Amino acid sequence: MAVLASGIAPHHITVFLLSVGVMLGLARFLGEAARRMGQPAVLGELLAGIILGPTVLGAVAPEAWAWLFPELVDPARDVYDFSYVALEMLVTLSAVLLLLVAGLEVDLSSAFRQGRATILVSLTGMIIPFGIGFVLAWFLPGPLGLGPELDRLPFALFVGIALAITALPVIARILMDLNMAKSDFGALIMSSAMINDLVGWIGFAVVLAMVHTGTSEGHGLGLTIALTLVFVATTLTAGRWLIHRAFPWLQANLAWPGGVLAFVFVLAMVCAAFTEWLGIHSIFGAFIVGVAVGDSPRLTRRAKDTIHDFVSNIFAPLFFASIGLRLHFTEAFDPPLVAIVLAVAILGKVLGSYTGARLARLGPRRSWAIGFGMVGRGAMEIILGQLAYNHGLIGEELLVALIVMALVTSMLTGPMMQWLLKGKRPRRLGEVLTHETFIPALRATDPRNAIAELAAAAAAAAPGVDARELAREAWRRERITPTGLANGIAVPYGHHAGVRTPLVVLGLSHAGIDFDAPDRRPAHLVCLLVTEMHDFEAQLELLEMVAHAFATPEARAAVRSAGSLTQLKAALTTTALADDEHAPEATGGCPE
Amino acid sequence: MAVLASGIAPHHITVFLLSVGVMLGLARFLGEAARRMGQPAVLGELLAGIILGPTVLGAVAPEAWAWLFPELVDPARDVYDFSYVALEMLVTLSAVLLLLVAGLEVDLSSAFRQGRATILVSLTGMIIPFGIGFVLAWFLPGPLGLGPELDRLPFALFVGIALAITALPVIARILMDLNMAKSDFGALIMSSAMINDLVGWIGFAVVLAMVHTGTSEGHGLGLTIALTLVFVATTLTAGRWLIHRAFPWLQANLAWPGGVLAFVFVLAMVCAAFTEWLGIHSIFGAFIVGVAVGDSPRLTRRAKDTIHDFVSNIFAPLFFASIGLRLHFTEAFDPPLVAIVLAVAILGKVLGSYTGARLARLGPRRSWAIGFGMVGRGAMEIILGQLAYNHGLIGEELLVALIVMALVTSMLTGPMMQWLLKGKRPRRLGEVLTHETFIPALRATDPRNAIAELAAAAAAAAPGVDARELAREAWRRERITPTGLANGIAVPYGHHAGVRTPLVVLGLSHAGIDFDAPDRRPAHLVCLLVTEMHDFEAQLELLEMVAHAFATPEARAAVRSAGSLTQLKAALTTTALADDEHAPEATGGCPE
Repeated sequence: MAVLASGIAPHHITVFLLSVGVMLGLARFLGEAARRMGQPAVLGELLAGIILGPTVLGAVAPEAWAWLFPELVDPARDVYDFSYVALEMLVTLSAVLLLLVAGLEVDLSSAFRQGRATILVSLTGMIIPFGIGFVLAWFLPGPLGLGPELDRLPFALFVGIALAITALPVIARILMDLNMAKSDFGALIMSSAMINDLVGWIGFAVVLAMVHTGTSEGHGLGLTIALTLVFVATTLTAGRWLIHRAFPWLQANLAWPGGVLAFVFVLAMVCAAFTEWLGIHSIFGAFIVGVAVGDSPRLTRRAKDTIHDFVSNIFAPLFFASIGLRLHFTEAFDPPLVAIVLAVAILGKVLGSYTGARLARLGPRRSWAIGFGMVGRGAMEIILGQLAYNHGLIGEELLVALIVMALVTSMLTGPMMQWLLKGKRPRRLGEVLTHETFIPALRATDPRNAIAELAAAAAAAAPGVDARELAREAWRRERITPTGLANGIAVPYGHHAGVRTPLVVLGLSHAGIDFDAPDRRPAHLVCLLVTEMHDFEAQLELLEMVAHAFATPEARAAVRSAGSLTQLKAALTTTALADDEHAPEATGGCPE
Repeated sequence: MAVLASGIAPHHITVFLLSVGVMLGLARFLGEAARRMGQPAVLGELLAGIILGPTVLGAVAPEAWAWLFPELVDPARDVYDFSYVALEMLVTLSAVLLLLVAGLEVDLSSAFRQGRATILVSLTGMIIPFGIGFVLAWFLPGPLGLGPELDRLPFALFVGIALAITALPVIARILMDLNMAKSDFGALIMSSAMINDLVGWIGFAVVLAMVHTGTSEGHGLGLTIALTLVFVATTLTAGRWLIHRAFPWLQANLAWPGGVLAFVFVLAMVCAAFTEWLGIHSIFGAFIVGVAVGDSPRLTRRAKDTIHDFVSNIFAPLFFASIGLRLHFTEAFDPPLVAIVLAVAILGKVLGSYTGARLARLGPRRSWAIGFGMVGRGAMEIILGQLAYNHGLIGEELLVALIVMALVTSMLTGPMMQWLLKGKRPRRLGEVLTHETFIPALRATDPRNAIAELAAAAAAAAPGVDARELAREAWRRERITPTGLANGIAVPYGHHAGVRTPLVVLGLSHAGIDFDAPDRRPAHLVCLLVTEMHDFEAQLELLEMVAHAFATPEARAAVRSAGSLTQLKAALTTTALADDEHAPEATGGCPE
């Protein structure tokens, strides 16, 4: 049996810190790459783990792999390697924080306000996939990978739950992209997904309790389930009430925002320890704390953002990368199993949610959109699968199939909803400007020459645009209606036959150019908006894009000091408003 | 020898999460309590550890203590307890992040710009206490607690360094409180402290290298020191240059601010692993990364704030609380040793820095202020002492003496500098308003009655103030010069004989009262400023306090919706500008 002479050795600290650095670095890098290809970041983060795990690194360089990601017992020296323990515990902590954040996103009070339609969509959207999954796993446990030593009931319950949950963060992101997050329709989808998740996790807690009954840690099935339900009910009623009452006091009396941050953390840790002791995994307690805290109107954006930034950029990549570390991904990839899980997951969820939406009297197109909106499983499914695997509830093959299913359904959601709702995400100025359409320093000092300079750039960027004609047309309009806005912005318009896609050209003027603005200030940011003849809708869209980008004083100041396209994009990114954020007051008090 | 049958048990996870929750909760609570008594938060955080450690909990309830904070080997069952390993590693990670943040505060480029005075102050301020400490430890190793098995040279070097370093965060906080952070004098103190810290930590790394030479992890003293210096030099030149170049690209291309956050973390982890491997402790690598990253003008406030919020509210309390967990504080408290360390630490540092300041031609009063400014040792000393203790460099008695010294000197700095510089911290509106001086809903609908209502509240709050007389005086002034400002604020003045301390009374009007503001908007926030007859300086101070509190649209909106004093204070705290922050643009563009 393995022994260790002394305590934690410096070698363990070295390996622990390096493995965290490497995992985080690769996971973030591939996560960003996935995001830039329009895919969910979790795809890249999982891939990082598969590369660092037995599938790639372990096969290519087994010794380096064994050094960086050791097992608990070092086989060569027959001693415990504590860097393994440290990494495992950090991953557990990451999962706890991940579910805390997931819980914070659940807005119970708004879910209840939505009423009947929410209940219908979430219930049928859960019951139908759960039923299909349960029946399938009950009658075909073998092909789904149930080992002979395991009980059939918790297995079938788990498969049902795994098919019934949905992915709140995926949906929230897509609705934001479609500019529908604040609409009634968006609120209906979000609320239904919230209820799905809440019920799903409570169900999963019950399944875990069933698995642990009879082991040394178990407290008896009835007691565990009773304690779980009492915990959920108390936290979401009395606990939630107390927390909401405590926030104003905390904010008035503690260091800001640190006091609130620490308060939420302490609650999450204590409740996580409690549910771990109950035998239903620590993350469940953190999730319920998140739900209880999350919809407090007193938990301000700043506190939520700080938690969110940290967890989704540090702890989430670590968790998802850790999954691949111990998984033989290619060996465990079972094509028929993956195909079955995928088909059932998509059919069950789409049909279930569609039926619920139809029962709630929504039109067929919107009902299909809800169906495909709820189909995305995302990160939640992967966490669920990983936990079930760790607890011996499912095998490696089913875990891999669930991961693939989570990824495919998440990638399906966005395009399908976009197609069904014909929605589109408003473009951002930083995404459309190129080296051709950004002039860091205009030579012109008067509006006429500035427009000519910008029109020349537009002609260089768009084939078929004649620079002189565009400049003449824009100058004609400028003389009739000057386009100087307040705060040093001017937006001359140029209509031109043969512009295929509307175009913005941005020029910076350091001296400033007088575009006859109402506040008499010279324009430092001059945007020529180029559209097809008489396409006023496109013109308005471009104007909104510019106004959104330059809404705050910080944004205008940062853009004015940009000397290159990269600096410009950095300035626009770091000062960008969130999609649902507006800063009317920044200019609202001024006579624009 | 202890063995463990299986891997990590749920019991270990429960204990780990609960111990983290309890430590964090108590540390934050006592830290806040200390802060409210005007003391450094670290005092409360250390106290939390002492309460949870053998000194209190271990003595009062030894079984609960052993359950919550187990040793590595469980003596009862003779198995390894992995919650010990997890907590130790989390504490190591906390120390790494703490030093990363400390490094981020170091602004190398501004330190170099300060020039000759900085060099003089920091060098003499280091050499004199170092010399005294070294000589003392060399000739009196016994009373300072050097064991016979240890080498005298690293011990004497360490004592010298421990007396020579200073506490950057303590000084930064005090200068901010005195409103001197941005002054030349403030920059001189900050820069000198930065150089002190940088040299001190490099020296400490060399001492650790000396201790580890000859052990299994050592690489030979010469090689270790050479690699350390090469690492520092490369990171602070080429590394810093590369990082500064990479930031605009990262901000333009990665998710914001998470990309930058993760980038800084990965760098810190990899360099921490490298220095741990070198044998000079992981925190040193994180500190150097922090210094290299910290003064990039591209690392925006938002990214720094996010790191800072998390580390100083979660990881710092955990680290400081962990110190008391294994320390027999009362047993190891050796009064003569504490007295010697304290006397030498204060005398050496004050005289050294004073001498440097005098050599740089500063006046005696300012030189004493610099001396006392540099005397605070704060958290850095405690980290240094804890590491030295962990590496067997010093005994428990000297560690306790260093902790006491760090706390006493930190508490000394603020009052001494305040007294010497006659500076004072501007008061904030949220601190001065009471139940008497805040009226959540004014009954009045015109200025005259509103002033009368506010004057009555002032009279209730301040003995000797006559409500009628005050109201008459204020109304007389109001008729001559209306006090409505833009954005719904009005500030009527009332001078009154016998007002001992200047007073603000705030009343909210939901309908709005016409105070003849230049923007024609009615006033919703009405502040009556009450001062002694003709005390225009006090009046101006009150006016600044009000203007600062209501500078942003968010603050005005939040205050308007406050229904009680607690809600008002919460609104003011959560929308407060930082002390060195101004929002002129928020109203600057408007014709106010």
